[in-house]
Amino acid sequence: MKKITILGSTGSIGQQAVEIIKKHSDEFQCYGLAAYSNLDLLNSQVVDLKPSIVAIVENNAAKRAKDLFSHYDLKVLEGKEGLYQLASDTGADFLLNSIVGAAGLKSTVAAIKSKIDLGLANKESLVIGGDIITKLLKTSKTNLIPVDSEHSAIFQCLKAGNRDEVNKLIITGSGGPFRGKKLKEMAEVKVEEALKHPRWEMGPKITIDSATLANKGLEYIEAHHLFGIDYDRIEIIIHPQSIIHSIVEFIDGSMIAHLGQTDMRIPIQYAFSFPKRIPGLLPSLELTEIEDLTFELPDYDNFPCLKLCMDAAKMGQTYPAVFNAANEEAVKFFLNQEIKFTDIHIIIREALENHEPVNLDYEIDVLLEVDKKTRAESEKLKNKILLK
Amino acid sequence: MKKITILGSTGSIGQQAVEIIKKHSDEFQCYGLAAYSNLDLLNSQVVDLKPSIVAIVENNAAKRAKDLFSHYDLKVLEGKEGLYQLASDTGADFLLNSIVGAAGLKSTVAAIKSKIDLGLANKESLVIGGDIITKLLKTSKTNLIPVDSEHSAIFQCLKAGNRDEVNKLIITGSGGPFRGKKLKEMAEVKVEEALKHPRWEMGPKITIDSATLANKGLEYIEAHHLFGIDYDRIEIIIHPQSIIHSIVEFIDGSMIAHLGQTDMRIPIQYAFSFPKRIPGLLPSLELTEIEDLTFELPDYDNFPCLKLCMDAAKMGQTYPAVFNAANEEAVKFFLNQEIKFTDIHIIIREALENHEPVNLDYEIDVLLEVDKKTRAESEKLKNKILLK
Repeated sequence: MKKITILGSTGSIGQQAVEIIKKHSDEFQCYGLAAYSNLDLLNSQVVDLKPSIVAIVENNAAKRAKDLFSHYDLKVLEGKEGLYQLASDTGADFLLNSIVGAAGLKSTVAAIKSKIDLGLANKESLVIGGDIITKLLKTSKTNLIPVDSEHSAIFQCLKAGNRDEVNKLIITGSGGPFRGKKLKEMAEVKVEEALKHPRWEMGPKITIDSATLANKGLEYIEAHHLFGIDYDRIEIIIHPQSIIHSIVEFIDGSMIAHLGQTDMRIPIQYAFSFPKRIPGLLPSLELTEIEDLTFELPDYDNFPCLKLCMDAAKMGQTYPAVFNAANEEAVKFFLNQEIKFTDIHIIIREALENHEPVNLDYEIDVLLEVDKKTRAESEKLKNKILLK
Repeated sequence: MKKITILGSTGSIGQQAVEIIKKHSDEFQCYGLAAYSNLDLLNSQVVDLKPSIVAIVENNAAKRAKDLFSHYDLKVLEGKEGLYQLASDTGADFLLNSIVGAAGLKSTVAAIKSKIDLGLANKESLVIGGDIITKLLKTSKTNLIPVDSEHSAIFQCLKAGNRDEVNKLIITGSGGPFRGKKLKEMAEVKVEEALKHPRWEMGPKITIDSATLANKGLEYIEAHHLFGIDYDRIEIIIHPQSIIHSIVEFIDGSMIAHLGQTDMRIPIQYAFSFPKRIPGLLPSLELTEIEDLTFELPDYDNFPCLKLCMDAAKMGQTYPAVFNAANEEAVKFFLNQEIKFTDIHIIIREALENHEPVNLDYEIDVLLEVDKKTRAESEKLKNKILLK
């Protein structure tokens, strides 16, 4: 029995992870659950999975949780400190970090320091803290298993060869709901339109990132850190059908690809069951019943967030952290209907231009300081846009 | 330096294998070459690769070879016995068996008995003698690396999981030059038309087998023996673009596929370099420059050879040997313009119907006796057709 803790259990990935533990109760047992504030859902998950510990981050919700769970045989942790305590609790054999955004970084670090095997759905951990995490992983013996469908695909495909036999990684992306559109045409895009992803069911932040293609940029950085491959050997290809989840090209011309249903339960379950595989929850994908598979180059001109992110990646230092924070803020502003869809990249670009990089051996706190500053800067940039 | 012997060096696979050894002279060295009768080509290969031994199967050519090579520092072996002597010569680290048809079986057995690692382009070895070879491989420690593009693909994709985690193997096929045609329309097909394969450059026998889809049936049997997977977990899917060379579906819903240029040099080189990979001879496949990828079910009604072969596979015993011999003969008759394209399956079907299976622990000689009888029977069936 593998004992699993889920951070972000009430989010989209978290809920699917809960389903996997329930359906594979012969394989997995829930040790801990952490949520931000959604007590109703957390309560039903607690009833279903009977974890030993829960952590609730938001203070008011945490206080209410104390009451709500008082008659359960359950330890209740509060606030961010409670979250980190759960993240580093070695009662779990495996930790799924499915917290959204930069907020997930400290939990990732906590788990690695405690040598708990880690499933990473929080790509921002690597986008911001890739260098630190890579260094930590070298000394710890923690397995870090990617949960993003693209990185899970690459992780699996890499088994067909050695790391020094890789020619390039090809990250595929659907192109999002606005594929083929010009930037101008996207100016008046409504929040509901941007939230309608053509292929994947995901939370709102990542769905907007998929619409701007910022998500592919973040994945580009994530792949670099996860697999130790230089940026010039990572390609992004638009594949609207989302059947091929990513590809590894080896030096001999062999390309090994991962195909399957467009469903996050496959990579989540693989992270849980690794190094073995267990029966999936979905029917087989029937290749003779799907659309034709097509591939195209990304449209960098009309999806400037992607190019900005890739540039930030290559500039390195604290630039990826700036990209990430500015993007998180700008997406929040857009979801709040404060700015236009096409203002997102403007905020990111100006935040990057205004940034003075910190060229140091990074510490998490330095990065979090940059994160905080960038969020304040993004707020100013938003106000500038609103004044126009 | 890996020392390599090539059986069938003047055939299509053999010539490509020679090119790989030449271009990777830092990795590979030629130990032996065997050809049927093409002395001109063999001579130029000898000059290029400087092998220690050659074997020439056809008697007159073998006698001429003695003269031709008399001033070389080269051992010349003659006839079938010479071929088997070379096949079992442990001066080689690796033997590529690219002999066409049932004639390759004894060389495969000889190599395994001598514990020489083996690259198998001769699928007929496994079609006819699969049970024997599987048993021999269990006691020998020989590596058997498939060279067929489909089986090389599966061999590589299987590395992404354990054997007991395989749900099914999906063998892809282009569908050949007559895909979409009705059987009736194929009655007047000319030899030149059948030899024009839309995707792969191959020798005449396999090209006709690709046109009738018999080749996919033979691959179905080959896959069963190579990977120890039951027939009901091996699927054939038509994929006209031949970009995806085959797929392994694991129990968790992950499908791992091999993609690449449609070029036999990739699987041949992989067999040579295994277990490592070395730089390929071809440019990368650019996915954004290829046609859309499509998939369809095989048309069993209009390509009866495929169904006949799959049925023979499932009947087992000596039926696959009968299918193979009848098919080899019928293809020869068609290439000689003695019968129509649509007579091929008639000869195979009647040969299978007339066969009394030998339900024994097979010996190679029993199988070769069945092979011989079936060829005589096929000759009779041809004459019956000619009398009509």
